[in-house]
Amino acid sequence: MAEPTPAPGTLIEDLETPVVTVDLDVMAGNIRKMQAYCDEHGLKFRPHVKTHKIPKIAAMQLEAGARGITCQKLGEAEIFAEAGCDDIFIPYNLLGAPKLKRLMALTHLARMSVAADSATTVQGLSDAAAAAGREVSVLIECDTGAGRTGVQTPEQALELARLIDRSPGLRFGGLMVFPTQPESTPAFLEATLGLLAKAGLEAETVSGGGTPQTWRTHEVPQLTEHRAGTYVYNDTNTMAAGTATLAECAMRVQMTVASHPTEDRAILDGGSKTLSADRLLWRDPFYGTVVEYPDAAIYAYSEEHANVDLSRCTSKPVVGERVTVIPNHCCTVSNLHNHILGVREGRVETVWPVAARGLVR
Amino acid sequence: MAEPTPAPGTLIEDLETPVVTVDLDVMAGNIRKMQAYCDEHGLKFRPHVKTHKIPKIAAMQLEAGARGITCQKLGEAEIFAEAGCDDIFIPYNLLGAPKLKRLMALTHLARMSVAADSATTVQGLSDAAAAAGREVSVLIECDTGAGRTGVQTPEQALELARLIDRSPGLRFGGLMVFPTQPESTPAFLEATLGLLAKAGLEAETVSGGGTPQTWRTHEVPQLTEHRAGTYVYNDTNTMAAGTATLAECAMRVQMTVASHPTEDRAILDGGSKTLSADRLLWRDPFYGTVVEYPDAAIYAYSEEHANVDLSRCTSKPVVGERVTVIPNHCCTVSNLHNHILGVREGRVETVWPVAARGLVR
Repeated sequence: MAEPTPAPGTLIEDLETPVVTVDLDVMAGNIRKMQAYCDEHGLKFRPHVKTHKIPKIAAMQLEAGARGITCQKLGEAEIFAEAGCDDIFIPYNLLGAPKLKRLMALTHLARMSVAADSATTVQGLSDAAAAAGREVSVLIECDTGAGRTGVQTPEQALELARLIDRSPGLRFGGLMVFPTQPESTPAFLEATLGLLAKAGLEAETVSGGGTPQTWRTHEVPQLTEHRAGTYVYNDTNTMAAGTATLAECAMRVQMTVASHPTEDRAILDGGSKTLSADRLLWRDPFYGTVVEYPDAAIYAYSEEHANVDLSRCTSKPVVGERVTVIPNHCCTVSNLHNHILGVREGRVETVWPVAARGLVR
Repeated sequence: MAEPTPAPGTLIEDLETPVVTVDLDVMAGNIRKMQAYCDEHGLKFRPHVKTHKIPKIAAMQLEAGARGITCQKLGEAEIFAEAGCDDIFIPYNLLGAPKLKRLMALTHLARMSVAADSATTVQGLSDAAAAAGREVSVLIECDTGAGRTGVQTPEQALELARLIDRSPGLRFGGLMVFPTQPESTPAFLEATLGLLAKAGLEAETVSGGGTPQTWRTHEVPQLTEHRAGTYVYNDTNTMAAGTATLAECAMRVQMTVASHPTEDRAILDGGSKTLSADRLLWRDPFYGTVVEYPDAAIYAYSEEHANVDLSRCTSKPVVGERVTVIPNHCCTVSNLHNHILGVREGRVETVWPVAARGLVR
């Protein structure tokens, strides 16, 4: 007894809540705007499909001019390769025999490139590629200030590039960073590219990424490619970063006020299992924007409840009233839902299964 | 091309990561211990299936002595009613025609009870039940200090009980609280039960809930029933609350060190899409326990990365090494995975689809 999906033509206000809608016109505008920016600045654009996990949306992004896609896990790459995407970058250290076997199988469907930041990762990739008689392009991940993965110095990058270059089955594909940081990324990349050039190694691709930094990507002249995912839907985080406006937020979660126990507190009918518990990066601790009540603050979550502070609202919603929430982070919301409803002019036009949801390996 | 599930008999250390395992012996012990506590104190036990969302585990809980189950959403209740659970409580304000229609359909499969904290909710339930010629039991949710849903005073509870009692299609089922708070809950319940008795209204059930408070439930003498979900798997939160030991944590996430970019930082191969972004309630901001490296601290997440601080560790893991993580909150982890692997003595014994995952309405 799976939950029914609504028929095309259903009005948004008639949908049972909570439910995730994506405005198709807004999304199309987001796709056009990003591609135009990359075209203007001579950047190859490689959208990150982890945001939507829906092959039909990737097809729209490619149709608009994107060259290849980015997947964060093999499970995503397998879905999108089967759907016809033939140029896939996985910016991740893939380790262990089962994953490397899957990667080699994917090379028969698509041009595969991956990232590495250690000799261990490179060695595993080379062993698998050589054994399978395949070739994989490997980009070196550089930590240019974000403090997550990546080599820490240009010298380490050079050393790893030399290892990749001499490893059977591998091709040195260039450099990648996440996120692009206009303040610190250029110096790291310039120094690294200088060392590589002296060693006779060419970085075919220098790939940066991240939606919040999108419109400053051209300030990093070394980049040849941009990766972004969130831009396709946008969310409260990209609004808070100044990267998107409310009108550019295509993803909305339709919700209902389930309870209004005090004058200043309302409870919406979904929590961390509907909206995710991802926090707002720039203005903690709010958990999403309530469109109809912009002075309302979602200040806490439990699994199926969102607690809303109404103390700054002049008018307040009543029990049973519907509201529209723009979540903090659209990528983790997609990942919680089996279906996303594409809407246009207030009505459901299409129902998309979130095809790569739940493929965590 | 869905991700393959491992064959029974596979060793845990041969599983591709990240993957969620549940130790069947540990889980069975957790089920026995909880039931024994409730039996000892004369409490009816009604496990909350939102934690596991797997009908086979509900069957084990019922077999051990539980009387009925708790579901948080209609989507869960539909799955469990179809699987044969015939006594289901949904502690939630159900609103709107589509949901009320589904609730009435469920009354043909199971004895249904729900919660309400407003006249709006009661009116909707009554209209739907009367129109369908069905009867539903309604418990009044009382906010005894948690600050989420629930009536705020015993007088409000009495008023709502009178409304339920005179509403066609409804039966006044009693009171419920979440979570049980041994300090503040008894006074609220005593006052409310006093008012109800004077008005000639009997609270058949007085239901409390929450795993962290479990072993103090008997300190609230008014309760006739206990609800808990997390106890079946346990997690870092229940350990931090002192409710469970490490040995009682049945759910473990098998992970791999994907990167080790600095001496003191390692990155595991899953983040908020694998472990959820739920925070630790008592000792922010850590995001899970690394069993093999108890001095390691998961201090940040992104979607597919967990950042681990190793500065307090005397020995440190290497890239490619496998580690076992006990997540902060097992309920939101279940909700991210299509399958859970039941393991015993280090080997996979069963593969359970998380049947009610993703049913957000």
